[in-house]
Amino acid sequence: MASPIASAALRARVKRPSMLKKLCNPEDMLQHFPNGAYIGWSGFTGVGYPKKVPTMLADHVEKNGLQGQLKYSLFVGASAGAETENRWAALDMIARRAPHQVGKNIAKGINEGRINFFDKHLSMFPVDLVYGYYTKDRQNKNLDVVCVEATEIKEDGSIVLGASVGATPELIQMADKVIIEVNTAIPSFDGLHDITFSDLPPNRKPYLIQQCRDRIGTTSVPVDPEKVVGIIECTTPDQTLPNSPADETATAIAGHLIEFFEHEVAHGRLPKNLLPLQSGIGNIANAVIGGLETSNFKNLNVWTEVIQDTFLDLFDSGKLDFATATSIRFSPTGFERFYKNWDNYYDKLLLRSQSVSNAPEIIRRLGVIGMNTPVEVDIYAHANSTNVMGSRMLNGLGGSADFLRNSKYSIMHTPSTRPSKTDAHGVSCIVPMCTHVDQTEHDLDVIVTENGLADVRGLSPRERARVIIDKCAHDVYKPILKAYFEKAEFECLRKGMGHEPHLLFNSFDMHKALVEEGSMAKVKF
Amino acid sequence: MASPIASAALRARVKRPSMLKKLCNPEDMLQHFPNGAYIGWSGFTGVGYPKKVPTMLADHVEKNGLQGQLKYSLFVGASAGAETENRWAALDMIARRAPHQVGKNIAKGINEGRINFFDKHLSMFPVDLVYGYYTKDRQNKNLDVVCVEATEIKEDGSIVLGASVGATPELIQMADKVIIEVNTAIPSFDGLHDITFSDLPPNRKPYLIQQCRDRIGTTSVPVDPEKVVGIIECTTPDQTLPNSPADETATAIAGHLIEFFEHEVAHGRLPKNLLPLQSGIGNIANAVIGGLETSNFKNLNVWTEVIQDTFLDLFDSGKLDFATATSIRFSPTGFERFYKNWDNYYDKLLLRSQSVSNAPEIIRRLGVIGMNTPVEVDIYAHANSTNVMGSRMLNGLGGSADFLRNSKYSIMHTPSTRPSKTDAHGVSCIVPMCTHVDQTEHDLDVIVTENGLADVRGLSPRERARVIIDKCAHDVYKPILKAYFEKAEFECLRKGMGHEPHLLFNSFDMHKALVEEGSMAKVKF
Repeated sequence: MASPIASAALRARVKRPSMLKKLCNPEDMLQHFPNGAYIGWSGFTGVGYPKKVPTMLADHVEKNGLQGQLKYSLFVGASAGAETENRWAALDMIARRAPHQVGKNIAKGINEGRINFFDKHLSMFPVDLVYGYYTKDRQNKNLDVVCVEATEIKEDGSIVLGASVGATPELIQMADKVIIEVNTAIPSFDGLHDITFSDLPPNRKPYLIQQCRDRIGTTSVPVDPEKVVGIIECTTPDQTLPNSPADETATAIAGHLIEFFEHEVAHGRLPKNLLPLQSGIGNIANAVIGGLETSNFKNLNVWTEVIQDTFLDLFDSGKLDFATATSIRFSPTGFERFYKNWDNYYDKLLLRSQSVSNAPEIIRRLGVIGMNTPVEVDIYAHANSTNVMGSRMLNGLGGSADFLRNSKYSIMHTPSTRPSKTDAHGVSCIVPMCTHVDQTEHDLDVIVTENGLADVRGLSPRERARVIIDKCAHDVYKPILKAYFEKAEFECLRKGMGHEPHLLFNSFDMHKALVEEGSMAKVKF
Repeated sequence: MASPIASAALRARVKRPSMLKKLCNPEDMLQHFPNGAYIGWSGFTGVGYPKKVPTMLADHVEKNGLQGQLKYSLFVGASAGAETENRWAALDMIARRAPHQVGKNIAKGINEGRINFFDKHLSMFPVDLVYGYYTKDRQNKNLDVVCVEATEIKEDGSIVLGASVGATPELIQMADKVIIEVNTAIPSFDGLHDITFSDLPPNRKPYLIQQCRDRIGTTSVPVDPEKVVGIIECTTPDQTLPNSPADETATAIAGHLIEFFEHEVAHGRLPKNLLPLQSGIGNIANAVIGGLETSNFKNLNVWTEVIQDTFLDLFDSGKLDFATATSIRFSPTGFERFYKNWDNYYDKLLLRSQSVSNAPEIIRRLGVIGMNTPVEVDIYAHANSTNVMGSRMLNGLGGSADFLRNSKYSIMHTPSTRPSKTDAHGVSCIVPMCTHVDQTEHDLDVIVTENGLADVRGLSPRERARVIIDKCAHDVYKPILKAYFEKAEFECLRKGMGHEPHLLFNSFDMHKALVEEGSMAKVKF
């Protein structure tokens, strides 16, 4: 196939002429992807990921019936787009994956044992990669090839990324070969990024950030031009989905949280404009940001992983001064709004490497208010963020533990129940003992459900259990959890082992009732 | 009782004349300790704690039969001396305690429900204290009274601490009243400390430390002289115990670790002089430091919580360049040796606040090699550091999670088994599922027992289980753990929930066999 001719749009984006000489078709890149290769993609939470090359490879496998014969170890900062990583999983093209993923087929591949997945703190993943931990058992200690989505290539050959930074700097740092997809369907994001790399000890430096708006890096990613094996034009935007709207439960949770923040301000433990907010993905997170919009708080700041549509509302209402994250994951209409009002938002936003956005160092220094949704929380304030019934992987740990270990306020928000197949309240999100622990009792300050807010700061485990059951559990489960706790307390105190009383051999009986009788409410203690 | 007359020794240590005017007897301080008071003590790992006032209060309670009628909320950086906190517990004088403790009676009080204890990351405890989290529900948002052991008081009234810093700066920061016990039985430690306080966000600053020897603070603790209500001379040293010697198991573990470090150096993942070492307390930790002494490594550095006797050997052998911690906990003969050779050690040692010694920020930056001993580790690399059988508190979390979350190398070392009452190998330290989780699978890099070393970096949970069982488990438990894992894997993969396969309702069967039949080896899977 002949080399393509650069479009005017592409020429406007690629400022270094020698790079244009590497313009090629996706198919030309096939040679760089032998079976077993270790590869990296840019991207984080389904934005800023490469589209053309992964799609070409998937087409190649599909067309030639090569399922299971071209398998890769795939490293991306967090999740990539569904049409790439999820399709790869469906075509059995992923042997190993870290540190996060989203998609029905990739979760299926992991839980059926075809994909060796490990989830790692998002702050640590890029650093461990640079330490050589993930390539230590192979001949080539680097990544064989890394595909990066750019929105511009500068005169010096450096790359202006798109809607996410993630682990891209470190992936490029570790790459033997780099393929750049220049996306001309979206504007250049030049100036929106603050790019840093990970040094090795003993030469690591402090991150000299004391405010959300502080810059410590460069606006583009330097890359050795000799590593670049191909430039491809991409003309399709990130395939994002509309946001999940806030429901009654989420609105109630947001209400409890706003009230709590007001209480903390009144008692002098928070400044009037709060402290930088971290907010996860999902309808509760959206409701909290929505709640702030109608609250009296102003001059807010955001230090988080992902910026979503609701933050645009918060900017427009004049409540939000500055927001920084490692990705902007708007809905399609959100992106439209963002591009249309670029000049309004441009200087109030900053995208950083995930090793910085999620750095314990900065989260502690800034005193972030961290908020996340778990699978389940137990009566002693441990939380499960990853594995349903202790075994089935959802999406991975993400940055939950980066924020919940290090924030000044570590907050878990969850509906008190979820439906099972046969019972609208068949699953209690407050359980006697978590079936998998990602956040420990030493990490969490506040648990909140639509029923209320449990402030567990400074409480002993038995005090915590009482307040969590009382404030957070659903009415159906209050007597059940109370029965478990009181029986455990009685038995354990009697035996002189009652610091954190458990009926160890009955601690998962609610989960057993769910499996065997369709609802946790059917348990007997 | 008449005010005491200052001894010559005391006058030599108290450089500010006005302070000498506050010289008093311990009994004079009784008035400052009403029932229910919130109090703080200096001290960390049983050194640098106040002796005279706590002993006076214990005597008072004992003599007057006031057990249970004078109860306090007691905050100390970590553990204090046995003759103080443990005796207080025996006399039912402790209502609430955080964040760590050592002593049979205090553990008994906690596990029988008389003491509300909570364990918190040692890096966070002083900060949360300053945030007001532990005093939020009382009228007085400060601590009522704080007792501090000093080895000198300077002209400006500031305090030179003794063998530990711990949380003392923040305790003083939060104190309404301060009582200073000047210990004249030990030398002045002037110049050995680097004292910092905890600022509140948004005004927290980076810790500008890039090497173990870097200083960022002052050598003494400033204190408002008007807060000082009494000065007391103390003439007894810290009551420490001899070190536990290395046994065969510990020596074997140390051997595996030294070999691992050599391997990492050979592969370029560690510099020749390693990276700063963190080492816990106990015979395995001692064996590791002993092993380094006979190894080829030199120019070593230590960044840890506690400096023990073995470090003196490492200094004397010329292998250790510098060591910094938050406490020096030598044995009585170790202290003797230290004082005798003061000039040799003085400029190679530095004691810091625990919010700095345990700061994730610095542990990550320096790339620390963190090593700790758990209660149990599971096949997926979670670890229990605190609660036996999920319920019975040992000593508390300490700094284990500060180091094991943030170190470049996060290492758990443990004997593969411990004896039960009826079986020399009745307790396997490798279990299917931890009964309490303090360190998550996302934290640990290496598990090592006397049998071998499991390097789990970059492995998926099922890969981890195979290598941990194979390398670390005791021969008695290898087939048992393998049977559990293979059955769990088969069942869970079949159901499409096999990322981290568990037989959830049999996951504690080994613990059940221990309780019911006296040995985990009696389990049937």
